[in-house]
Amino acid sequence: MTYELFYHNRIQGRGEFVRLALEDSGADYVDIGRGEEAKGQGSPAIMAILNGEGINGEGIVYPPFAPPFLRHGDLMIAQTSNVLHYLGPRIGLASNDEKARLFLLQLQLTVMDFVRDVHDTHHPISNTLYYEEQKDAASIAAQKFLEFRLPKYLGYFEKVIARNPSGARYLSGASITYPDLSMFQIVEGLRYAFPNNMAKAQTNYPHLIALHDEVSQRPRLKAYLQSPRRIPFNENGIFRCYPELDI
Amino acid sequence: MTYELFYHNRIQGRGEFVRLALEDSGADYVDIGRGEEAKGQGSPAIMAILNGEGINGEGIVYPPFAPPFLRHGDLMIAQTSNVLHYLGPRIGLASNDEKARLFLLQLQLTVMDFVRDVHDTHHPISNTLYYEEQKDAASIAAQKFLEFRLPKYLGYFEKVIARNPSGARYLSGASITYPDLSMFQIVEGLRYAFPNNMAKAQTNYPHLIALHDEVSQRPRLKAYLQSPRRIPFNENGIFRCYPELDI
Repeated sequence: MTYELFYHNRIQGRGEFVRLALEDSGADYVDIGRGEEAKGQGSPAIMAILNGEGINGEGIVYPPFAPPFLRHGDLMIAQTSNVLHYLGPRIGLASNDEKARLFLLQLQLTVMDFVRDVHDTHHPISNTLYYEEQKDAASIAAQKFLEFRLPKYLGYFEKVIARNPSGARYLSGASITYPDLSMFQIVEGLRYAFPNNMAKAQTNYPHLIALHDEVSQRPRLKAYLQSPRRIPFNENGIFRCYPELDI
Repeated sequence: MTYELFYHNRIQGRGEFVRLALEDSGADYVDIGRGEEAKGQGSPAIMAILNGEGINGEGIVYPPFAPPFLRHGDLMIAQTSNVLHYLGPRIGLASNDEKARLFLLQLQLTVMDFVRDVHDTHHPISNTLYYEEQKDAASIAAQKFLEFRLPKYLGYFEKVIARNPSGARYLSGASITYPDLSMFQIVEGLRYAFPNNMAKAQTNYPHLIALHDEVSQRPRLKAYLQSPRRIPFNENGIFRCYPELDI
């Protein structure tokens, strides 16, 4: 059954973590937010669900709070980590073992905390204000992030790979799982947002960079990254290139 | 088998969402961070795990990034929502049905996003700075939070209860689940942090307030809340009473 992803159509954002998993696995999916309005897709299809009355004979029993969310048959699932937790075993990107699944979810939740911290470097005060209205706060926030949070997160994930009992190649187990794809995206995004700092920092995380490089060469993912389906990084997303924050 | 909770000993924090579930269910658990160091508990026990080498024959295969985390036999689980996802069906606070469990996890993840937004009202720029060093930014952050985020979150959870196909009493299904306990904590915390704003706002969310009131009267939870095991709200936690932010 086709997976339907609902997410904004002009940014990678949190939806990209789901897109990478769907693309890498070759799953049958539709990126509804990027579809044609004439076909009942596009942004109106997302808003209809968020603002809809939900709960009826054929409607939404489990209303989402925000994109991304996924529809699969009569199931509607929101929250990036939850979507990936659901998809993982179904698309070959997670074990079915309960303990292993819990650890993958734990890793993904930590990735999403990391993502929030990255986002907040350019929007520390409020999403309802433009970056230009909170530049001074952003300058301090980015400095503190680069000094404390970046090495703490990257050091943690590096350690997780290094200590993997199945060998120091993936975050968990002996084959690729969805948090590995998310770590690829984290490294890509950090290189886009903080090229100077990442050029210096990444030498400290050889396992992470090796994982990033391996993921980037996976055939289906490589084809996706070179296709128009991959939205370029831009200054509306989570990872933004503001040189004044990369000092 | 006894559950061992690892969390800071002087704040409710994110650990409180786990404590509420353990207390309400009457589960056999130890709050390790609040135990005696002479017994191998207290803060050193937490640090030993976070800083330990992990991964060995009897060690930590799944290293946590930060508290709270839970040990249950040889399993170590981190991330508040993940801990509750694991505990839920085991302590009678979640269905075993996959779809229902996914929705509970989705709700809890949205609760934790809400918690992060509350926290960031007093620490918008960085956790490595004192509140007093970011008061001006906090003032704007709190104002924007109260104007936009607070009604968005509370309105969402109110809607979820109102549309519950099993009746407009709980967030999901016909009996209490762990996100219901978390909503109690959210309402308590918001009343502590923003008494003026909550006094005005709460009339808009009758189902949420009714849920809060019902939870507060559950016998085991009521006994817990009146016991010394319930750490009072204070200005080191997530919900802080700074009158200058509650305008």
